[in-house]
Amino acid sequence: MATVTDTPIRIGVMGCAVIARTVSRAIDLAPNATIAAVASRSLEKAKTFATANGYQQSVKIHGSYESILEDPDVDALYIPLPTSLHVEWAIRAAESGKHILVEKPVAMNVSEFDKIVAACEKNGVQIMDGTMWAHHPRTAKLKEFLFDSDRFGQLKNINSCFSLAVDEDFLKNNIRVKPNLDGLGALGDLGWYAIRAALFANNFELPKIVAASPGTVLNESGVILSCGASLSWEDGRTASIYCSFLANVGMEITAVGTNGTLCVQDFVIPFEETQATFTTCLKSGFNDPWVSRPTEHSVKTEIPQEACMVREFARLVGEIKNKGAKPDGFWPNISRKTQLVVDAIKESVDKNCQQISLSGR
Amino acid sequence: MATVTDTPIRIGVMGCAVIARTVSRAIDLAPNATIAAVASRSLEKAKTFATANGYQQSVKIHGSYESILEDPDVDALYIPLPTSLHVEWAIRAAESGKHILVEKPVAMNVSEFDKIVAACEKNGVQIMDGTMWAHHPRTAKLKEFLFDSDRFGQLKNINSCFSLAVDEDFLKNNIRVKPNLDGLGALGDLGWYAIRAALFANNFELPKIVAASPGTVLNESGVILSCGASLSWEDGRTASIYCSFLANVGMEITAVGTNGTLCVQDFVIPFEETQATFTTCLKSGFNDPWVSRPTEHSVKTEIPQEACMVREFARLVGEIKNKGAKPDGFWPNISRKTQLVVDAIKESVDKNCQQISLSGR
Repeated sequence: MATVTDTPIRIGVMGCAVIARTVSRAIDLAPNATIAAVASRSLEKAKTFATANGYQQSVKIHGSYESILEDPDVDALYIPLPTSLHVEWAIRAAESGKHILVEKPVAMNVSEFDKIVAACEKNGVQIMDGTMWAHHPRTAKLKEFLFDSDRFGQLKNINSCFSLAVDEDFLKNNIRVKPNLDGLGALGDLGWYAIRAALFANNFELPKIVAASPGTVLNESGVILSCGASLSWEDGRTASIYCSFLANVGMEITAVGTNGTLCVQDFVIPFEETQATFTTCLKSGFNDPWVSRPTEHSVKTEIPQEACMVREFARLVGEIKNKGAKPDGFWPNISRKTQLVVDAIKESVDKNCQQISLSGR
Repeated sequence: MATVTDTPIRIGVMGCAVIARTVSRAIDLAPNATIAAVASRSLEKAKTFATANGYQQSVKIHGSYESILEDPDVDALYIPLPTSLHVEWAIRAAESGKHILVEKPVAMNVSEFDKIVAACEKNGVQIMDGTMWAHHPRTAKLKEFLFDSDRFGQLKNINSCFSLAVDEDFLKNNIRVKPNLDGLGALGDLGWYAIRAALFANNFELPKIVAASPGTVLNESGVILSCGASLSWEDGRTASIYCSFLANVGMEITAVGTNGTLCVQDFVIPFEETQATFTTCLKSGFNDPWVSRPTEHSVKTEIPQEACMVREFARLVGEIKNKGAKPDGFWPNISRKTQLVVDAIKESVDKNCQQISLSGR
């Protein structure tokens, strides 16, 4: 957390996507960050966005992405552009010495991803993706339970899903269903979270095998609207994930270990902003007096999870800017693994659900 | 339900498995059924079981399965024998004119299943499998929600799992892990329920494609200890199932439709005997004020679900015995579909997760 004497990290918002509203508020709420600038492809759009989001007069308005890259009063950029544009603008941001908070999916594929990260490394800037739920204090509690060898034991299976019923207009016009914009569709946009959950529960070990499930739904351009996949690790650990633009909201994690069971009903975006819950069941076997009701746990958060994310990002940027620290490797590392699994599922979808081996990737 | 003047259906318990204790109590609690006899391979075992379960003096004790088949005071048999013995004893029961409540899995494969049902049809006896949860009044409420085109819309995906951590002794000695006894292992014993849930949510339409997920765990005899599978139907409906003897209790259903979401945390055996809950979320989209907390629904039951099952079985037997009705086709029909999916998953496991088509089966 920022100490009182640190200057807040000055973040520029690069693009006026819907999600940028949420993150703008998050930057406002994070104690160690401030909105310094906003850019769009036109000055008019940037102005409208600034006004609509109640930006202070001091926030600089840029009429082009190039312009915000050159702004000396911007430490870091939040990039909610369509995925296909990430590789260009994230690299240019890195080359301009800006730290990067980039929306997921980070890239169209891991090869693009690696180019972005190489640029960040070369220029000594921090990169983090916009997976908000990872920063909720509840997530730390989930981790505590999942890695408690007594209460949970060893993971055996995790099921995670994220679905969201979009409307007709979205299905026709949204960038998330356009092959040249967010060509990974529901897999990149929603599946990213479910995959991250599966990796999280496996201590970010990559699965050995990934296979898409039969029943993928594509739109007429071949973009994934709905799909599922199975993942498997050593020792019989398995995961199944599901994501869809065509089904009502589902944000479930169910994880079973040798000793315990974990359920989360709203892992992506908690039902309430100030607290989030999960349930656990401890060891019960065939001969016990069956199972007792799960225990509900509630975890409060002082600021919403997206503000926790901005706070963590700004903390890392602050370490670099104020203390000469090196960029942190944890977040890009788990981003890359998520991207690798996204790629593998996409490959399996394209190959009629063939098993894809991740060994050596 | 039995009318006051009907004599209770007289049920014989054929085999003294652990589950027979639960069902004995259920027969006791069902208003239209009574325990008439018990059989084991030795008179001693049958006597011990009768005493341990508080059977009344009037209950006849048989020292062989043949003997209970010939008992004229037995209308129906509850058969909790190892699966591999079902085909022999269920057919002999049918040929003796006894109605049959048989534990799941009904048979080792659908070919055996069909022989059993053919014998039942030939002899005009009722057959029903021991899937208790299907008879809980909660299940009727789940059905109401799942087939409500406003509140739930059309099903898109269902995830269902049943896991149960057994102990070392079970893994070595239990009939459920012996290829010559319950050779379908966790798939037949636990997966049966998860598959039934997937079929239930699809109005018992068979999936078109079934594929085992990578990561199946077999014991040294090749019996399944843990596995998952994906199922797909027309219109992009999908399901994933998971079953395991190696993970702590998990009994989850998560179903997402176009308009609604359903979660059940204890679909196989409710946490409480007298009531059971589930949660629903109604339509929420990308632009709504996100999602509201799920609504919890509670459904009371006067008698435990296994007694509801016996009551339904005895009702159908009563219709035949007292009113000359024909055996009911619903229960054997959904049993057969469950068995077909069990077979297909087993086949896919044996063929390294190859997709199995169920068209024409």
